[in-house]
Amino acid sequence: MAVFNVFDLFLYTFPMTTNTPLLTDLYQLTMAAGYWKSGKAEQEAVFHLFFRKLPFAGGYAIAAGLGDVVRWLEGFRFGQEELEYLATLPGRDGRPLFEKGFLDYLGTMKWQCNVEAIPEGTVVFPHEPLLRIQGPLIQAQLVETALLNIVNFQTLIATKAARVCLAAQGEPVLEFGLRRAQGPDGAVMASRAAFIGGCASTSNVLAGMRHGIPVRGTHAHSWVMSFDTELEAFATYAEAMPNNCVFLVDTYDTLEGVRHAVEIGQRLRREGHELAGIRLDSGDLAWLSIEARRILDEAGFPKATIVASNDLDEHLIESLKHQGAAINVWGVGTKLVTGGEQAALGGVYKLGAIRDENGEWQPKIKLSEQAIKVSNPGIQQVRRFTLNGEFRGDAIYDEESGCTVPTEIMHPADPTRVKAMPEGTVHEDLLRPVFRQGVLVGEQPTLQEIQARCQEQLTHLHATVKRLQHPHEYPAGVERTLAERKLAMMVEAKGKVGATA
Amino acid sequence: MAVFNVFDLFLYTFPMTTNTPLLTDLYQLTMAAGYWKSGKAEQEAVFHLFFRKLPFAGGYAIAAGLGDVVRWLEGFRFGQEELEYLATLPGRDGRPLFEKGFLDYLGTMKWQCNVEAIPEGTVVFPHEPLLRIQGPLIQAQLVETALLNIVNFQTLIATKAARVCLAAQGEPVLEFGLRRAQGPDGAVMASRAAFIGGCASTSNVLAGMRHGIPVRGTHAHSWVMSFDTELEAFATYAEAMPNNCVFLVDTYDTLEGVRHAVEIGQRLRREGHELAGIRLDSGDLAWLSIEARRILDEAGFPKATIVASNDLDEHLIESLKHQGAAINVWGVGTKLVTGGEQAALGGVYKLGAIRDENGEWQPKIKLSEQAIKVSNPGIQQVRRFTLNGEFRGDAIYDEESGCTVPTEIMHPADPTRVKAMPEGTVHEDLLRPVFRQGVLVGEQPTLQEIQARCQEQLTHLHATVKRLQHPHEYPAGVERTLAERKLAMMVEAKGKVGATA
Repeated sequence: MAVFNVFDLFLYTFPMTTNTPLLTDLYQLTMAAGYWKSGKAEQEAVFHLFFRKLPFAGGYAIAAGLGDVVRWLEGFRFGQEELEYLATLPGRDGRPLFEKGFLDYLGTMKWQCNVEAIPEGTVVFPHEPLLRIQGPLIQAQLVETALLNIVNFQTLIATKAARVCLAAQGEPVLEFGLRRAQGPDGAVMASRAAFIGGCASTSNVLAGMRHGIPVRGTHAHSWVMSFDTELEAFATYAEAMPNNCVFLVDTYDTLEGVRHAVEIGQRLRREGHELAGIRLDSGDLAWLSIEARRILDEAGFPKATIVASNDLDEHLIESLKHQGAAINVWGVGTKLVTGGEQAALGGVYKLGAIRDENGEWQPKIKLSEQAIKVSNPGIQQVRRFTLNGEFRGDAIYDEESGCTVPTEIMHPADPTRVKAMPEGTVHEDLLRPVFRQGVLVGEQPTLQEIQARCQEQLTHLHATVKRLQHPHEYPAGVERTLAERKLAMMVEAKGKVGATA
Repeated sequence: MAVFNVFDLFLYTFPMTTNTPLLTDLYQLTMAAGYWKSGKAEQEAVFHLFFRKLPFAGGYAIAAGLGDVVRWLEGFRFGQEELEYLATLPGRDGRPLFEKGFLDYLGTMKWQCNVEAIPEGTVVFPHEPLLRIQGPLIQAQLVETALLNIVNFQTLIATKAARVCLAAQGEPVLEFGLRRAQGPDGAVMASRAAFIGGCASTSNVLAGMRHGIPVRGTHAHSWVMSFDTELEAFATYAEAMPNNCVFLVDTYDTLEGVRHAVEIGQRLRREGHELAGIRLDSGDLAWLSIEARRILDEAGFPKATIVASNDLDEHLIESLKHQGAAINVWGVGTKLVTGGEQAALGGVYKLGAIRDENGEWQPKIKLSEQAIKVSNPGIQQVRRFTLNGEFRGDAIYDEESGCTVPTEIMHPADPTRVKAMPEGTVHEDLLRPVFRQGVLVGEQPTLQEIQARCQEQLTHLHATVKRLQHPHEYPAGVERTLAERKLAMMVEAKGKVGATA
């Protein structure tokens, strides 16, 4: 395949901005050209962004990413540089892939969709639309890829963070994954999402500056190695940063390191400062933390914290807790910011309905050999039912036909499992307006407010749903009216396929 | 812990630039403050960036990321906004963490290190320094985190891509992971690295524009769903984009979709165009591709390609090849751009030596309970030995003491395993100058040149080293002189620890 060296002309500073509608798959643009050419570009459509499977084999997920989605959509316009690049792209026959008329159309396009979203920090479940985009088919289609990129990743990491923080049982979790994250904004967005999920702070200074997340850090092994002795290293650090002393004690011999930290801690105290703590970064964290605690306590430093790190995740933290490890603060990096065993949330973006020439909404489904993969039709909303402060079930329903009362929720994979919402439940609809005809509506919450929402939401889930392994399944599915309509559409669509075969 | 709402003042457009020295862990800055305060800031030091374990249980890795490292280092300076932010950070006692004198020092700092690097696209092995940074201790330390972020991720993905392309046996691999990648530049950098590793093209338009990577794409299921019938959808697409027709055939019934593609293909041909191919995105790809090939061939379209996608990775591709799948082009997304089963390369950055007051280099090591984790001391270079066009072994040696001839390579985990390089081998040193006292030297290769280097490098590895599972272990380790010096230093350092206990 040809390599277009001419594009080397588009020099970039590191890293390029991604605030461009070209943060997309090429097929969105070729489809857009097709919609434009066939006169369907401005036909009204509605798409939903959702995932089909909870990450980490867990019982819930935490919605995240909307704040960055909003910023990206606010900047959605094709500039001169983008259009010039698109004009250079060749088709298979070497002639231009895009007509000039289409590129001119893109150049004058102005974002005008309605967007509804489930607020960040909300607990969410499979098949629930996290975003609903309604507007000209061409626009709703063009934003798909960027929205998936942002929401998939941040929802994955916020969920991981919630699990890690749950395992830490309220003790502070420090996120410090920048060096192992997937690219610079892979790191900054992970810091943002990890904070939403409950992390107390980050090591990532840029994330601190951009998002107001508290930053933490003291020193590395290289600090100790740059001196002749560990004691000299600690003493010099204490002189420079007397109000930020957490000594990393495992460069040579961990417990010897703890004794050196105590020695400098006594010196700090004589000078009116206090040893903040020590950090363990290798070895048997259970045994070492218990021994370190004993040394610190006997030396008169019962308040010095013990920070632990070294490839931690929710399962290791849970195990260390069970072993009685004397750890007060948990430093979690790689496995938090990348998702660890699961590096992507498989979120998708599917057409729900399209308005025909008569102004009527035509619901749409995509068939699949796997029933669970057949998309839900219509213009969807999610209704959450609460009884005595506990979330009891979520029903996906079609806003056009409404949600029948009393509400029955069908299990997504097993239509014979139906959960009826009992009388006395209160309910709220989760999708709320974010853009109206392209204009941002309402106040955007701060990151601290989003984190607080997440904490609050989790209190309404039954403890068994939050269990790290083999959690209790929360009832979330399609409301009966919509489920029946979907089934009828599947039968009809399969009949059509047969008829043409 | 306190949450600094005041930082919400630092508003950002989406996404923020990461071209800032604050793309770092806070502890780099607190250490920097300590070096400054104690007069060690400009002591000369040398650090090495390396990984300890090959990703994906494979036999080799592909170095990548240097191009972005160069761009980031060229922009390395502290601006007013960064310094103002740092001035707001509090220590544990609420007083400023950083002294004004230190922040002033940062404000005037100018990048002045020497950087050596193994060129991108080179096959590399554990413990080999991919980067060597030599210069003022404070500067070499401050860049650690960003360098790790960039090199860890891109090396991981270039390696994954090389494995995937190897499995595809020279057939084109399309990367289209943007929607599942870890953030926007997590995607663009993945596209860059995947191209280095051998991918033919990307779906990511921004990566195409910024890096000159060929872009590919046609249409999604939503295109088909937006029409009343699949045939109408294909026909309309063919009218709009006659020179870019790869029809996605599995929206309703896959083989029926192939017949519809044939019907439109015949129409295209009558109009002087040609059906480029079809794409399968679900179901049994082996069976469906064979059936689709038969339909296409019988209808007179033997040149129409069959593109396959659906959660592919190197193992699935290898299996499909074994099954005789009639697939010509491989679309690989999530598992390529995130690394799939391994989401991070555990690269580290370690102090190798520091120059003392007498101008003498003092080699440094970090001990560990695991011998494999003890870092190599000195100012390191990597020498690669080649015999009859085959790479035969890599020796890490200390440039100060040189590489003894004949060269013996010690296995990193087992000092009793020694590999002597036979007479008649030719050798080259892999680390080459990139910056001299902060100034970029030499021409930077284009991405196409880097991709070509990777392809060429792989031809010099024995086939068994490239095997996807349980590969033959390539001899890469420390040269005998350095190994003996390291052992002596370990014994001495452990003695010191004991003496102070």
